[in-house]
Amino acid sequence: MPVLTNIATLVTCRAEGGQSALHEIPEAALAWDGDQVRWVGPEAELPDDWADAERLDADGALVIPGLVDCHTHLAFGGWRADEFEQRIQGVDYRTIAEQGGGIASTMRHTRAASEDDLAAKSHGFLREMARLGVTTVEVKSGYGLSAADELKLLRVYRRLHQEQPLRLVPTFLGAHVVPPEYRDDRAAYVDLLCEYLIPRIADAGLAQFCDVFVEDTAFSVDEARRVLTAGTEHGLRPKLHVDQLSDGGGARLAAEVGAVSADHLEYTSDDGIRAMAEAGVVAVALPLASLYLNQPPMDARRFVEAGVPVAVATDFNPGTAPSYHLPLALTLACTMNRLTPAEALKGATLIAAQALDLDDRLGALEPGKQANFVLLDAPTVNHWLYHFQANAVVATYVRGERVD
Amino acid sequence: MPVLTNIATLVTCRAEGGQSALHEIPEAALAWDGDQVRWVGPEAELPDDWADAERLDADGALVIPGLVDCHTHLAFGGWRADEFEQRIQGVDYRTIAEQGGGIASTMRHTRAASEDDLAAKSHGFLREMARLGVTTVEVKSGYGLSAADELKLLRVYRRLHQEQPLRLVPTFLGAHVVPPEYRDDRAAYVDLLCEYLIPRIADAGLAQFCDVFVEDTAFSVDEARRVLTAGTEHGLRPKLHVDQLSDGGGARLAAEVGAVSADHLEYTSDDGIRAMAEAGVVAVALPLASLYLNQPPMDARRFVEAGVPVAVATDFNPGTAPSYHLPLALTLACTMNRLTPAEALKGATLIAAQALDLDDRLGALEPGKQANFVLLDAPTVNHWLYHFQANAVVATYVRGERVD
Repeated sequence: MPVLTNIATLVTCRAEGGQSALHEIPEAALAWDGDQVRWVGPEAELPDDWADAERLDADGALVIPGLVDCHTHLAFGGWRADEFEQRIQGVDYRTIAEQGGGIASTMRHTRAASEDDLAAKSHGFLREMARLGVTTVEVKSGYGLSAADELKLLRVYRRLHQEQPLRLVPTFLGAHVVPPEYRDDRAAYVDLLCEYLIPRIADAGLAQFCDVFVEDTAFSVDEARRVLTAGTEHGLRPKLHVDQLSDGGGARLAAEVGAVSADHLEYTSDDGIRAMAEAGVVAVALPLASLYLNQPPMDARRFVEAGVPVAVATDFNPGTAPSYHLPLALTLACTMNRLTPAEALKGATLIAAQALDLDDRLGALEPGKQANFVLLDAPTVNHWLYHFQANAVVATYVRGERVD
Repeated sequence: MPVLTNIATLVTCRAEGGQSALHEIPEAALAWDGDQVRWVGPEAELPDDWADAERLDADGALVIPGLVDCHTHLAFGGWRADEFEQRIQGVDYRTIAEQGGGIASTMRHTRAASEDDLAAKSHGFLREMARLGVTTVEVKSGYGLSAADELKLLRVYRRLHQEQPLRLVPTFLGAHVVPPEYRDDRAAYVDLLCEYLIPRIADAGLAQFCDVFVEDTAFSVDEARRVLTAGTEHGLRPKLHVDQLSDGGGARLAAEVGAVSADHLEYTSDDGIRAMAEAGVVAVALPLASLYLNQPPMDARRFVEAGVPVAVATDFNPGTAPSYHLPLALTLACTMNRLTPAEALKGATLIAAQALDLDDRLGALEPGKQANFVLLDAPTVNHWLYHFQANAVVATYVRGERVD
């Protein structure tokens, strides 16, 4: 039953008050037992029950809930550094995709990689993410794009979830793009997803969510509806990649199918935002993708003002967001997506947990929640996200144990 | 006489070939003696002279010249985290300045700080910059804005240059904004700069450059011409902050006065670019400022294509660019300013040294130049700037000694 004391400010990120309410406690203490938070409050009010508990000194740190990266494509073969240079030289994402680059290139390298290779590479990323304060990571398949290779990716995630301390939340994204084998028979690929893969993945407990990339170069709204309906029938809750390159009506689809989140949303119409607000869909801002693609970012203020909770994630992937630096994504969410630092932090803790349907257990520091927390060398949340440093994290704890 | 071996690729950044030519040597070795590079080339061709030299193993690192941050406002009192939040909420930079925030706020904190306080704070920044691969830092005054406080800042820089390993290159920026005491008599402040401060600073050897912020809220082209002319008469070479918020004709002034660099340039006209090309003025891109101000970035391609060498720097300051992470600025120079990774790296090595009139001694790895170099954990320059990490630097050497 350890107690962390000498916390300059503890940011609880409790739900009350919505996106901008952090519920900060000055001169705080945090007590936990096993993997659960038992008490948070002013250190001067620490109950006597904890008088003999082991004390850990936070040395005046700012303490926040463990960060939740609710949108990543963690496991992939190869990299695409040369496409980064091509895009700067003016070649657009669609053109690169049409030339066999983009997702198709990563697909070839992912198919060629063994489970061991993919696990070892991802394990390295997770270690670095823990050092950056990340404690929970949503992880999508979608670079296998064949039955065997999609199952391979999801098995890699299951193994990583067991072998290292961060919680991984797996999402089946077989509907990332249509693989080349099915280019002339898209319907057959959608059949493979709905009739073969989704039932097997659900039976084996290999994913919790089902996601579809809705875009001209990927899947139509009708195809997405079919895949997500099949997922829902098998207990996989819907997520969506929508409106990244144009307004494709994806936000309205997210509302219609009861998606837990809709992600990207750079080009979403006011109608789409209203539909998301009414249906309670979380919007996920992915500013690193806007930065790397040099495209107009999602305007998060429009969503917040319409009553849509906004999460912030990295979108870590080898093409359009090749960085897992979630604190950088939070600073960018301020400068590019126009979230305040408080809103951005809530978006990478409680609201990100909500985008994974885990907000009953994660994302805030209050009794009964998991003891996932981060010590930061920063005087305030504003200062942390304003003065961007390589890494302001002093220590990261997952389920009550230090992991960085 | 040590030799660094087992370098996967050594990037020399020699001058030939201009902005995009890196002159990479695979499987290289680097030999130095004291503070000077003596030999670079393929390890297999290392001359016999070095057979008995001390060997250091680069362990397959990518080796680049020590980074040069050619535009910072390193020493200042206070911070301005709350203005960061204000700007997100829609308050613009000019309005904040008019309300007594912005530079005037930092001026008050800087005047209140002692030399010891300013030196200790800046020393901490320099240690972190060294860990990020930075070996040379241009440092501007400009937050004192009184005779005593401007001299204080320049004395802090002299002391820091002596007390820590990075080379500091001091610039007098008394003409940053008109201080409140002179609001009703701007000419008297310009007189103070030209007739009192510049001669004393030059006599004491406290600065190498003289800089002026040309903008509606700061100084006019005519005022800048007077200050820079006085600087030139006393041996301080001109630099300029121009066209950051509007096209104020600053680029043409830079050409007219023979400035070593013109910095910012977000709104520069084609005429201004042509004038800079003809006069050989270096353009300095400051993408962190564009990011933090959420303003259109300088289009570096226009400059490169017009034959203007483009340097990249952080603009580190507590208002519009509160980060000294130069590798992040380089990634942003790719995504925002449209430089290729090779062009960005040359812009933070040889061309940045050129913006400090130090390219005869710094910024490239070739015999006779200073032994300033950085070992990176990255396979290629493209990969380093594409896969943004907290810090890819393995080791930083200044004048042949490890400093990180």
